[in-house]
Amino acid sequence: MEPGYDLPAMIGMTEADVQTPALILDLDALEANIARMAAEARAMGVALRPHAKMHKSADIALMQIAAGAVGVCCQKVSEAEALVRAGVGDVLISNELRDGVKLARLARLAGRAQVAVCVDDAGGVAELAAAVAEAGTGVRVLVEVDVGAARCGVAPGAAAVPLAQAILAAPGLTFGGLQAYHGGAQHLRTEAERAGAIADVVGKVRQTLAALEAAGIAVPCVTGAGTGSFRHEGASGVYTEMQCGSYAFMDADYGRNLDAGGAWTSPFRNAMFMLAGVMSKTRPGHAVCDAGLKVMSMESGLPVSAREGVEYVGASDEHGTLADPGDVLRPGDRLRLIPGHCDPTVNLHDWYVGIRGGVVECLWPVTARGKHF
Amino acid sequence: MEPGYDLPAMIGMTEADVQTPALILDLDALEANIARMAAEARAMGVALRPHAKMHKSADIALMQIAAGAVGVCCQKVSEAEALVRAGVGDVLISNELRDGVKLARLARLAGRAQVAVCVDDAGGVAELAAAVAEAGTGVRVLVEVDVGAARCGVAPGAAAVPLAQAILAAPGLTFGGLQAYHGGAQHLRTEAERAGAIADVVGKVRQTLAALEAAGIAVPCVTGAGTGSFRHEGASGVYTEMQCGSYAFMDADYGRNLDAGGAWTSPFRNAMFMLAGVMSKTRPGHAVCDAGLKVMSMESGLPVSAREGVEYVGASDEHGTLADPGDVLRPGDRLRLIPGHCDPTVNLHDWYVGIRGGVVECLWPVTARGKHF
Repeated sequence: MEPGYDLPAMIGMTEADVQTPALILDLDALEANIARMAAEARAMGVALRPHAKMHKSADIALMQIAAGAVGVCCQKVSEAEALVRAGVGDVLISNELRDGVKLARLARLAGRAQVAVCVDDAGGVAELAAAVAEAGTGVRVLVEVDVGAARCGVAPGAAAVPLAQAILAAPGLTFGGLQAYHGGAQHLRTEAERAGAIADVVGKVRQTLAALEAAGIAVPCVTGAGTGSFRHEGASGVYTEMQCGSYAFMDADYGRNLDAGGAWTSPFRNAMFMLAGVMSKTRPGHAVCDAGLKVMSMESGLPVSAREGVEYVGASDEHGTLADPGDVLRPGDRLRLIPGHCDPTVNLHDWYVGIRGGVVECLWPVTARGKHF
Repeated sequence: MEPGYDLPAMIGMTEADVQTPALILDLDALEANIARMAAEARAMGVALRPHAKMHKSADIALMQIAAGAVGVCCQKVSEAEALVRAGVGDVLISNELRDGVKLARLARLAGRAQVAVCVDDAGGVAELAAAVAEAGTGVRVLVEVDVGAARCGVAPGAAAVPLAQAILAAPGLTFGGLQAYHGGAQHLRTEAERAGAIADVVGKVRQTLAALEAAGIAVPCVTGAGTGSFRHEGASGVYTEMQCGSYAFMDADYGRNLDAGGAWTSPFRNAMFMLAGVMSKTRPGHAVCDAGLKVMSMESGLPVSAREGVEYVGASDEHGTLADPGDVLRPGDRLRLIPGHCDPTVNLHDWYVGIRGGVVECLWPVTARGKHF
C-alpha cells in the first residue's frame, strides 16, 4: 500500500513511512501550545485572536476557538473566505484592502461571518463603505496605527481621529478600534530589547487613545501582539486582544529568542517539523536530503536538525546538504528538521501530517495555502 | 464581472484589472527566449532538455519541446508524473530517488513515457533495478558525477565505472551516461569566473569519460549546463545535452550576472513578473504593496521594481515596502516586480497569467506546483 499521488501519508502508518519531504505536526505539542496560550490570555484578562496567516488551517483555527479564542486573524480576503467556508465564524483581516474586487468579496463575506478589516486612509474608508453598501452587509473597521513597523498604518495620535469619525459616519461600518502590531519586536533577541520596543509601542497606542478620547470617541478594542512579546502587550493595560500566531508551531528563529533566565520560548514546544529523506550519501561526513528551498522558507535562516549529531548546512532548491560527522545517516533515512520560519514554510504545503506516538493520526489540508489575494 | 475566487484573471481583461499579487508572463518575451535558446543549442550541435523544475508548467514544457527540445528535466517523481499526465513524453529526473514508494512510482511512470533517473551509489542501482523488475518497465539511468556542486554524485573518475557496470548488468536498466551539473557556477558574477568554473567541470567530466572508456563502456550522453554558463558547456566538446531552465523567464539574480562587455543576460529578456497592488500610502516617499515573502522567494535577494523611480526595499510575509521618492503611487495601483529567484517563486503559485499587449491572453496552471515528493 502507498498513499495516492499527492498525499504524503495514510492514517495509521508510522512516521518512517511518510513520503518526504512532508510537513508533520506533533499533535501533543500542538495541543499543549494551544492550551497554554489560551491560559496565558485568560490569566491576563485579554481576548485571544490567533493569527491564522501562520497555519492557514481551518482545523487548527477551530481548535483555537474551541480553546477560547474569539476568532482568528487573516491577512488576505481569499484566506478569510477559505476559513469561513470551512466553519470559522469570526475573522479580522489585519490589513488594508484597496481593490474593488477584494472589497466586494469582503463585503459579501460579511453576510456569512463576523468580518472586520483595517484602514489607514480616508480613501480606504470611502471605498469600503461603498462596497458594504452595495452588498447590504456590515463590517467592523479598525484603524491601523503604525506603532513601529514602518509599514502600513497612520501615525500615532491625532491622525486616527478623522478616520474613526469617517467610519462612525458610514452606514454599514462599525468602528472596531485600533490595530497596533509591531512584527519586528517579536524577534528582538533579548527580553530587555523586546520589553523596550513594546514599551514604545504602548506609548504610541496611549497617545492615539488620548486623541480619540479627546474627540469623544470610544475605542472598543486595541488588538496586536505576537508570540515574541505578548506578555508585555497583555500586561500593558491598553491591549484588549492579542493576535499571536507562531506559538502554535514555533520555529528555529523563535528558538533563538532569549529571556533573562534562558530560553524565552520555554512555554511553547516545537510542534511543526519538516520530515526529510536522505537521498545521497557518497562520502564521509556528508549527506544530502530531499528538503530544500521549495519546502522551507530560508529567509530567517537554515532549518535546525532535530537529529542529534546531524547539521543542516546548505540549501538549494530541492536539496539540503547535511553535515554528518558520525556517518549515522543512510539513504532512505528520515530526519526531522525545524524550519527557520513557520509562516512562509506552511504556505509551501498542501497537507499537514499529524503524528502522535510515532503514528499518523490525521491528514489536514492547509486550507488557505496559496490564497494570496 | 470578476474572476472566480481562486483565479487571478479572466481572458481578455487588461493587466490593470488582474487580481494581485499574481504571477504574470510576458508571452512575447517568453516565446523569444524559448526560440533563442533552441537556436543556440542547434548552433552548438547539442541537445536541449530544459529543466522544468523552474516553470513546473506542462504548457511551457510542450512549447519548449515544439521548439526542438528532446524532453525536459524534473527534480521529483511527482513533478514528472504531473507533466507526463499533461502530455510530456520524455522526462529525466536529474536526481537520486531512495525510497520504495518513489521508486515504484518512477518504474510505473516508465510505462507511460520515456523516463530516466540518476544514481550515485550501488545501493541506488539495486533498489531501482528491483522496482523496475516489479513494474516490468525500463528506465534509462545516468550516473551523477559531483563536478563541483559538493552535493550528490560520485567523485570524478573511476568511481563511475562500477556503477555503470551495475546498470549495464541490470535487466530493465539502460546506461544513459553522465549527469554533470554545477549549479553554483551559474551565478558567479563575471564571465571569467564562470568560464574558469566550467573549465574545471569539463576537466572532471573528461576524467570520468576516460575511466569509462578504459573500462570499455560507451557513454551515450553527458548532460548538464545552465542558463549562466551554457555556452561553455555547449562548446566544450564533451556535453551532448544542456539542461538550462531559467532562460525562459530570467530573474533579478541572473540580471546581476555580467559578461566582459556588459550584461551577459542580453540574449534573454525578463518574461516573468510579480504583479503587485499598492495597499497603503500614508506618508511621503513610502508605500506598501501586497507582495511579500509568501509570493516571492527572497533568498537570492529582494525583487527589483520594473517601475521607474520606485524601489522594493523590504519584505515581510504579506507586505512589500516600497521607496516612492516621487510619490507616484496611489492605493490600488499595480506595479511589476522582477523576483530575485524564479524557481522557488513559481513554486508559490497556482496560476500563470499570460499577457500580450497589455491584455490577458491565457491562464495556465502551474502544473507541478507543490509536487515535492
